Amino acid sequence: MDDQFPIEVCFSPAMFPLYKAEEAIVVVIDILRATSSICVAFENGAGEMIPVAKVEDCIPYKDKGYLIAGERGGVMLDGFDFGNSPFSYMNEAIRGKKIAITTTNGTQAIEAAKGSYKVAIGSFLNIDSLVNWLKTERRPVICLCSGWKNKYNMEDSLFAGALSKALINTGLFFTDCDASLSCQHLFEIAQHDVFGFLGESSHRKRLKRLNIEKDIEFCLMRNLTRVVPVLEGNKLINLKSGVTA
Amino acid sequence: MDDQFPIEVCFSPAMFPLYKAEEAIVVVIDILRATSSICVAFENGAGEMIPVAKVEDCIPYKDKGYLIAGERGGVMLDGFDFGNSPFSYMNEAIRGKKIAITTTNGTQAIEAAKGSYKVAIGSFLNIDSLVNWLKTERRPVICLCSGWKNKYNMEDSLFAGALSKALINTGLFFTDCDASLSCQHLFEIAQHDVFGFLGESSHRKRLKRLNIEKDIEFCLMRNLTRVVPVLEGNKLINLKSGVTA
Repeated sequence: MDDQFPIEVCFSPAMFPLYKAEEAIVVVIDILRATSSICVAFENGAGEMIPVAKVEDCIPYKDKGYLIAGERGGVMLDGFDFGNSPFSYMNEAIRGKKIAITTTNGTQAIEAAKGSYKVAIGSFLNIDSLVNWLKTERRPVICLCSGWKNKYNMEDSLFAGALSKALINTGLFFTDCDASLSCQHLFEIAQHDVFGFLGESSHRKRLKRLNIEKDIEFCLMRNLTRVVPVLEGNKLINLKSGVTA
Repeated sequence: MDDQFPIEVCFSPAMFPLYKAEEAIVVVIDILRATSSICVAFENGAGEMIPVAKVEDCIPYKDKGYLIAGERGGVMLDGFDFGNSPFSYMNEAIRGKKIAITTTNGTQAIEAAKGSYKVAIGSFLNIDSLVNWLKTERRPVICLCSGWKNKYNMEDSLFAGALSKALINTGLFFTDCDASLSCQHLFEIAQHDVFGFLGESSHRKRLKRLNIEKDIEFCLMRNLTRVVPVLEGNKLINLKSGVTA
């Protein structure tokens, strides 16, 4: 396995300190909806995005010429330009714009991952492009599921399973992490109808109450974009802007 | 759902502070091997067991007339009477004896669970008896997986799935916890050959190197005992001693 790189899955930002991430690429996952929406924003030409853990630290960006995006508990925050719906980023008005974003789970996970070798943004929307990029990076990969308020959630685990499987299929990666193995088993069950499979999950029910089923169906679609958002300093930039923009 | 009680699964003692456990019964799970071995010890007549998180806090019990059991990283500690193998407790010499025990993961999880309404010990060896007892208790249940050094592991999750399913099948319990749902899916895949399913798991590999495959096969057997070990103060006692002893 000299030329293979390990994959691990971490189910919660609360467990992330247990992982040795200094030499690893951490893929932050918040399928419903932060990392999906970040991919859509870059696909639609956003210039840079600043993930911010706290609401109060996000608001001041408005006066610095940023658009601000904010959500807590699935609901858009007052005074913000966007919530956390991917559809809100499908808008010519964001082309070239700088956006600061704070969400319940995803931006907390990005914060937790700082200090690792690199931090990338993963979603079903950019999975193949992400895999191709990780192949060229040749590094250990840690999939960091954002979960729900630090607890395990189903949709992030399913994506971690899909990503683990795709990476292992390249021949360049392996895993001996039980969390990754579990996620792969789950994805195997769910893959032909992820939306249906998630029907019973806690987060899907939570979002259903908020009437955003359309967002969910969208966030489970694969390869709608080739963006690979990566953290540089405190900013997310799109590594593949040359390809897609 | 007025008369139904919720089941949750927590994958790591590190995440346990996120759970509201004051009113819940916490079932501590360390299939390989602490909670399995504790069940075997009570089945063989142990009088009481004191779970101790730290090795140095366990040793002094020897001078107080206790047998002491200690394991770290799968290996029995020097100067201890037992390691963590269930077979070491199949011995007439332990009948009526007091035992202090410290292990890599299980006793840490028990420590973390203190402060909940009750703490019980779960394993495949006592699953039906545990389910019957939980039915009479009529309380929320939290399955606390010990994991491996606070990381997720497969065998504890499989048991959490088996227990969740069995409780839900009684009609008295329900879950909207994604972790419990995941575990149930995994157990559904694994149930007809848990040993084979675990063949790929990290902990099974780790224990294989230690040559304790026989322990593993044993720990995956179901309903070899009707004991229900429960924490009272700092001691585990067997609620069902009248039935089995």
